[in-house]
Amino acid sequence: MDRITIAKGDGIGPEIMDATLKILNAAGAQLEMDEIEVGENVYLKGNTSGISKDAWNTIRKNKVFLKAPITTPQGGGYKSLNVTTRKSLGLYSNVRPCRSIHPFVKTKHPEMDVVIIRENEEDLYAGIEHQQTDEVVQCLKLISRPGCEKIVRYAFEYAKKYNRKKVTCFTKDNIMKQTDGLFHKVFDEIAAEYPDITNEHWIIDIGAAKLADTPEIFDVIVMPNLYGDVLSDVAAQITGSVGLAGSANIGETCAMFEAIHGSAPRRAGQNLANPSGLLRGAIMMLNHLGQNDIAEKVENAWLKTMEDGIHTYDIFDEKTSKEKVGTKEFAEAVI
Amino acid sequence: MDRITIAKGDGIGPEIMDATLKILNAAGAQLEMDEIEVGENVYLKGNTSGISKDAWNTIRKNKVFLKAPITTPQGGGYKSLNVTTRKSLGLYSNVRPCRSIHPFVKTKHPEMDVVIIRENEEDLYAGIEHQQTDEVVQCLKLISRPGCEKIVRYAFEYAKKYNRKKVTCFTKDNIMKQTDGLFHKVFDEIAAEYPDITNEHWIIDIGAAKLADTPEIFDVIVMPNLYGDVLSDVAAQITGSVGLAGSANIGETCAMFEAIHGSAPRRAGQNLANPSGLLRGAIMMLNHLGQNDIAEKVENAWLKTMEDGIHTYDIFDEKTSKEKVGTKEFAEAVI
Ligand SMILES: CC(C)[C@H](C(=O)O)[C@@H](O)C(=O)O
Ligand SMILES: CC(C)[C@H](C(=O)O)[C@@H](O)C(=O)O
Repeated sequence: MDRITIAKGDGIGPEIMDATLKILNAAGAQLEMDEIEVGENVYLKGNTSGISKDAWNTIRKNKVFLKAPITTPQGGGYKSLNVTTRKSLGLYSNVRPCRSIHPFVKTKHPEMDVVIIRENEEDLYAGIEHQQTDEVVQCLKLISRPGCEKIVRYAFEYAKKYNRKKVTCFTKDNIMKQTDGLFHKVFDEIAAEYPDITNEHWIIDIGAAKLADTPEIFDVIVMPNLYGDVLSDVAAQITGSVGLAGSANIGETCAMFEAIHGSAPRRAGQNLANPSGLLRGAIMMLNHLGQNDIAEKVENAWLKTMEDGIHTYDIFDEKTSKEKVGTKEFAEAVI
Repeated sequence: MDRITIAKGDGIGPEIMDATLKILNAAGAQLEMDEIEVGENVYLKGNTSGISKDAWNTIRKNKVFLKAPITTPQGGGYKSLNVTTRKSLGLYSNVRPCRSIHPFVKTKHPEMDVVIIRENEEDLYAGIEHQQTDEVVQCLKLISRPGCEKIVRYAFEYAKKYNRKKVTCFTKDNIMKQTDGLFHKVFDEIAAEYPDITNEHWIIDIGAAKLADTPEIFDVIVMPNLYGDVLSDVAAQITGSVGLAGSANIGETCAMFEAIHGSAPRRAGQNLANPSGLLRGAIMMLNHLGQNDIAEKVENAWLKTMEDGIHTYDIFDEKTSKEKVGTKEFAEAVI
């Protein structure tokens, strides 16, 4: 039995969390849960961080956290809880597998099977911004050698563990010679320690262009935080939908699992949302906890549902789908 | 007769410039030219800026500059001449039209017709980087109100002039609330002055994802410098190839026209390169100079060549192409 922390989040969060938990339960996942409240309700009670001290303690104690998407109110100095959690818990690695499920889910890229490994603590996400004059504002992009080393090593270890053949690095080091240059340099250094894994570097502009056009040429791709944010959405979307991708945020002691998409407030409460992203985050969580058999069982059931053409609205397509279902019915089908 | 400055650049630069000039000449373009030397040869003579004072004077005097791609040597404190030119001449707007030529050039996005308008002087391209400690480096992202105002107004004026219906803005202002927040705020302010043009804002992650997946939902997109760098390569590539797109860099007094792709040193001197990017830059230049009839003539001839399936290797495809040609033969076909 593993004890984890869960948060149902905002918008479509509670619906996809309920669906996910039902599936995990039916599969016999060995989980005890502490539920915490984070996000909109906490913000609106006046806590600009969106999370209480007690909730932090629970997360740190249980070490593993399954989090549904949350809504951060605009303006007023609110901080993104996603970013705070990643930084506070030292979750330096954000792993986002993006694989097409051809021919069952419509995609223009049937052969695609890319894992984006995104640095998760540094870069422009350090959150250091200030107003220099009336008309000039600045944001600091921050890159450290230990930060680069951790994420690049993680990418190569990941490739080794999952038997992947190539790790690609994207940076813009022809312009940012010191910051992106450091990332690239560390990549080259660490790549040399893994002679059995092919390595390559692309300037991010043409790299992103190739990813969007011919993703099948890539395998594992490691990159700084902001690039990874944008390109993991790109990669997930072109497999069929951002709604399909889950994400693991991994640190030395703690880990957080989530969907890569947002809380979609306009779709909330209508039994419309696709729980696949959070569910696939949860599958990564089960693997992380060592409950690999159950992870496999859930993954196969999910895949079977996809292959049966039982699809939520976001991926529904006349040709490839058979039945358009809501969140609950989708969960039932997986079960 | 208009007097312009040209630079043949490095790698495939001289070949695509020769092809472009032959076509312009055959079409009767009214151009006198001063040729300057920039790029690799100048760098290797020890000038780390890649350009001489005399060359600057020529560019400023003639005001219009047609530039082939150049190679910047790695390391050693060399500066990107592209970036220096844009900043020194105040070329605040980088216009990159990306339109599919379906069914003549193979693309997964037949209905695509997007114009990326990229801010061209600020952002992380300010080039302010420093090493803070042994292990920490920083780069400054710089956004100014006048910079935002100029580029956003340019985007709406462009939409008005070319009768486009919608201007979209991409930023990551949920994280960079001050810098990207300013860009978004100015966008909203200026959008309000153009009630006949639809406006919308997307967070860059999901915006980029939609652009890569369903580009036909976008029209004009305006964004900060680095996002525009990456997403204009994405947009051009998914129309068929980055080799097809030209780019106009526009300032108050000067303007520079170029291809969006690089100098591809490995393809150089083999009569392989596609001159279309530079040629389409040159077409934008002719329009800028008021030689609209000739611009139209060249554009039609180019389009006819594309439609005839006379294609260079980069876009050659068994199904949509008829004849695989080299740079020179392509130019002949256009002529
Ligand atoms: C919600 C937002 C702060 C977050 C990010 O930018 O990292 C999200 O886009 C993601 O990718 O997890
Ligand atoms: C060559 C490079 C400096 C340049 C840029 O980053 O702007 C290029 O990628 C472009 O898009 O014109």
